[in-house]
Amino acid sequence: MDFKQKYGPWGLVVGASEGLGAAFAENCAMRGLNVAILARRAAALDETAEKIERTYGVQTRKIIADAGKADFANIVAKGLEGIEVGLMIFNAAAEPGGRFLDISLADHMNNIQVNCVAPTILCHTLGGAMADRGRGGIVLVSSMGALQGIKQWVSYGAAKSYELLLGEGLWDEFREHGVDALAYVVGSTYTPTFQRIQQRLGLPFAESIDPSKFPEGTPMPRLPEDVAARLFEHLGDGPRLYSHADDEAKAEADARLPRREVVQTMGEMSSIFFKGGLNETINS
Amino acid sequence: MDFKQKYGPWGLVVGASEGLGAAFAENCAMRGLNVAILARRAAALDETAEKIERTYGVQTRKIIADAGKADFANIVAKGLEGIEVGLMIFNAAAEPGGRFLDISLADHMNNIQVNCVAPTILCHTLGGAMADRGRGGIVLVSSMGALQGIKQWVSYGAAKSYELLLGEGLWDEFREHGVDALAYVVGSTYTPTFQRIQQRLGLPFAESIDPSKFPEGTPMPRLPEDVAARLFEHLGDGPRLYSHADDEAKAEADARLPRREVVQTMGEMSSIFFKGGLNETINS
Repeated sequence: MDFKQKYGPWGLVVGASEGLGAAFAENCAMRGLNVAILARRAAALDETAEKIERTYGVQTRKIIADAGKADFANIVAKGLEGIEVGLMIFNAAAEPGGRFLDISLADHMNNIQVNCVAPTILCHTLGGAMADRGRGGIVLVSSMGALQGIKQWVSYGAAKSYELLLGEGLWDEFREHGVDALAYVVGSTYTPTFQRIQQRLGLPFAESIDPSKFPEGTPMPRLPEDVAARLFEHLGDGPRLYSHADDEAKAEADARLPRREVVQTMGEMSSIFFKGGLNETINS
Repeated sequence: MDFKQKYGPWGLVVGASEGLGAAFAENCAMRGLNVAILARRAAALDETAEKIERTYGVQTRKIIADAGKADFANIVAKGLEGIEVGLMIFNAAAEPGGRFLDISLADHMNNIQVNCVAPTILCHTLGGAMADRGRGGIVLVSSMGALQGIKQWVSYGAAKSYELLLGEGLWDEFREHGVDALAYVVGSTYTPTFQRIQQRLGLPFAESIDPSKFPEGTPMPRLPEDVAARLFEHLGDGPRLYSHADDEAKAEADARLPRREVVQTMGEMSSIFFKGGLNETINS
């Protein structure tokens, strides 16, 4: 089976408006899949869809939906009517940032809705159809923040850990149906969201576009196109894939350290982002 | 500060009807705390409350509530009116078991409600009050199943991982307020739930009450009273505590193995529980 037979005819990228999500969608298209792209903002989808159709000559479908809303599953189901999704990449994320007690309960609940409820529903509905067909792929995009408790992003890290374990467990169950499930642990990535945070905080590396210019000691962000390309080279290599060998090495090193030290070090790093007063929910 | 000054005057144990939860409640009482115990079934609470009052001469309060229901937070708030909770142990759990696709979406959603939404709300409300007082403790009971994807308990393991990271992250934020948060990673425990599963499946060790008689190769369950006592000796030792040194050693060894092997081995073990046809939601 070639790529298109295994994962086609349609890919679905949830959270596809820009950055990593748009790069995932492009990677689907360059391998011959039609792509359904989902995001909250219509304008961003238009641009991505137009570029994909023009460059790769595949079909696109745009779905405007908010993974944090109760009608999400219904809107997705309607948006996918008549097409067969063979590859689902869940890349949407709510990222409530700030002290746990300073974040409203509503934002904590939205975090669970977007990062836990929404992917669980799509894995159930789309994964079930893939299992029936005996082929397909499911990717849950998680984060290095899912590997230990993380100050300033406590409930976000927890929800990303839910996604990580969901992907790993599904790998073990779905492989018996010929479906590749995988949790993608993504480290620092040079997305528009990342750049907006940089700029807002006036961090020393805020004006840099070239990741090679990032100063020693700060986490080295990767380019979205590289992070996306790596995933597509390893779709069958679950249960867990890291976005870069450096991230994998860091996770392995951390696993040998006292837990207290790991959590504390991560907290010191995450706190850098909040020194400038950033305290709001970022949705990507 | 002695134990009562630090964690008193009231402890709250969520999921306290029997087994580990009842043992947590007893450990609160034997250290001089009054105890609010919460469970879904009134009958089980009556017995535990009566025993605690008779044995330790402390006050108890019974709260009948289902952590999976939307009115949970309100019922808890009403149940706690007029008392000050200095120690909250979240031990309730929904455990939807069986293949991910065979479990209904309603059960997957209940899993998220009980294991993610409910503890997040209580950490926010009770944790906020503790932070204001500058003392207290919060324990989130997680599981060895939270450390890797787990076949047959995919969404349960994911939700337990949410709790694990929530506890670790809160440890880092709450310690600045004098509040001890901790994620308790509990391994196989010889609870009534455990025994019911054994009996239903006719497992070889079903009739054994003495953990020392468990055959080589099956996970050695610990006695609930030992698992509870260990927690109370280490409330300040977050972010993460294992219920037994053997569990910690296993986790450390697994962290050095290829991820695929870890998930696969866990899946083979969890599948043993389902050979007898067990396929239902267990709520503890």
